[in-house]
Amino acid sequence: MRLVRFGPRGSEKPGLVDTQGTLRDLSSVVSDIHGPTLSPESLARLRALDTSSLPAMPADTRLGPCVGQVPNVVCIGLNYSDHAAETNTPIPTQPIVFNKHTSALAGPNDPVVVAPGSGKLDWEVELAIVIGRPAWHVSEAEALQYVAGYCLCNDVSERAWQIEMEGQWTKGKSYLGYAPIGPWLLTADEVPDPQNIDLWLDVNGTRRQTGNTRTQIFGVATIVSYLSRFMALRPGDVIPTGTPPGVGLGQKPPVFLKEGDVMTLGSDLLGTQRQQTIAYSDAMGAAWRAGQLPAL
Amino acid sequence: MRLVRFGPRGSEKPGLVDTQGTLRDLSSVVSDIHGPTLSPESLARLRALDTSSLPAMPADTRLGPCVGQVPNVVCIGLNYSDHAAETNTPIPTQPIVFNKHTSALAGPNDPVVVAPGSGKLDWEVELAIVIGRPAWHVSEAEALQYVAGYCLCNDVSERAWQIEMEGQWTKGKSYLGYAPIGPWLLTADEVPDPQNIDLWLDVNGTRRQTGNTRTQIFGVATIVSYLSRFMALRPGDVIPTGTPPGVGLGQKPPVFLKEGDVMTLGSDLLGTQRQQTIAYSDAMGAAWRAGQLPAL
Repeated sequence: MRLVRFGPRGSEKPGLVDTQGTLRDLSSVVSDIHGPTLSPESLARLRALDTSSLPAMPADTRLGPCVGQVPNVVCIGLNYSDHAAETNTPIPTQPIVFNKHTSALAGPNDPVVVAPGSGKLDWEVELAIVIGRPAWHVSEAEALQYVAGYCLCNDVSERAWQIEMEGQWTKGKSYLGYAPIGPWLLTADEVPDPQNIDLWLDVNGTRRQTGNTRTQIFGVATIVSYLSRFMALRPGDVIPTGTPPGVGLGQKPPVFLKEGDVMTLGSDLLGTQRQQTIAYSDAMGAAWRAGQLPAL
Repeated sequence: MRLVRFGPRGSEKPGLVDTQGTLRDLSSVVSDIHGPTLSPESLARLRALDTSSLPAMPADTRLGPCVGQVPNVVCIGLNYSDHAAETNTPIPTQPIVFNKHTSALAGPNDPVVVAPGSGKLDWEVELAIVIGRPAWHVSEAEALQYVAGYCLCNDVSERAWQIEMEGQWTKGKSYLGYAPIGPWLLTADEVPDPQNIDLWLDVNGTRRQTGNTRTQIFGVATIVSYLSRFMALRPGDVIPTGTPPGVGLGQKPPVFLKEGDVMTLGSDLLGTQRQQTIAYSDAMGAAWRAGQLPAL
């Protein structure tokens, strides 16, 4: 199944994209695409539905982040040997783990705000794991049983904030909207091999990243098992698994995003995303502080 | 007000500790002590209540984490000059930011599990900020308006996992239960000066940490304003602000926790916590994987 969340930002409804590519409304069946919906039992119930009876939505309906009420976004860094090389960092001997603030989550085609003071805004196409069952001290052999499915993520990164501002990467990874996920969560039963997923990303129509998860240093089962030793994972946790070569920081000379640039990224299995960068405005900050989502 | 959450783990109810020290049930008034309850308007409504009419609970009622449905735990590291010195790290020129997984949150007196493979388990008494209004691009002068209140946090840390396992600290900060918060959230109106809060921590009755937030390198207003440049903060976000000197890693020679040790920590304003360390058992992992909270 291709599970989605659709509608205006902040009030998305659950849905699915059926085998004909039609977006259908699931809100009469589940309240959200979130932890409880992602359990094996719940997914089995959804799979048994006659989807043709669900309301069809227009093709141009906005999509939100494909998972809602995400408890944590925990990421793997430098997980492709070629990417480690292009960023001049040694190949890690074990997974490097960092976090994104959950308010970074965004829809797959939402504009990406160039933050005030940002000068090194960069892209990272990634395969993200979505957890479906509580996972703590899970063996590598059993790890895939805890995965509800997979989605595309652009791990948008401000490199100066990530690297040049003392310690810890989270500063450069957490800005509002810097984690577009979707268009859909593809349930794990429809992913024959998570270590054979192609990924690509274009900036303004120029191919920048091409990769396949077969060159990951640490694969999906290893990542889930490894993380589960250090933290108790919950259904709905989202785990971006690192990016293949071709980020802006790795270009010679480095290339960073400027206002108006368009990132297009995708995967045969996981669909495509498109984000245009826009300038921050004081009205955006004022809206957030007033308890609204800023107009983008 | 001293706001609390009480009752069995995972099904806590909202409450408050009244001026006589009696625990009272707020569940007829609000659904939880969480983001929506922490808005200035909601806190004003609670302040206007005649608390003597609320049901009183027994003094030995278990307390849970004093904030529920926490969107993020984002922490400040090395924020006391003496603590930076004892850990042999330079004084930071700007706040060091890292995350704890939200499943690390625990009640103030819950046992702390010594994780399998853990050898360097350490303590960190901290002042934690609780956000009450959406904060994004907030000036330092206005930052305190976005704070709902404060609570005590033990930023329990596994030093080998934090420091010796490549990159990023989150691995050593995120284990289940490694973020006890409470006993209560003290609303900001009852904190005359967040930069004059005493903090102390004992291990097995021996004083290990003594400090006061007046020696923080970056104060509360600076932290909230600074973070709001990098991430859009939401009501209910919890921000532990760093620990004063005296952690186990800073002892000469270093001292780490073993099973059965008792941490007692506190602050005149923010109450006390007590945690005894216990061994991990396979039954705990099995319970979590079955969708239950492990018996501690």
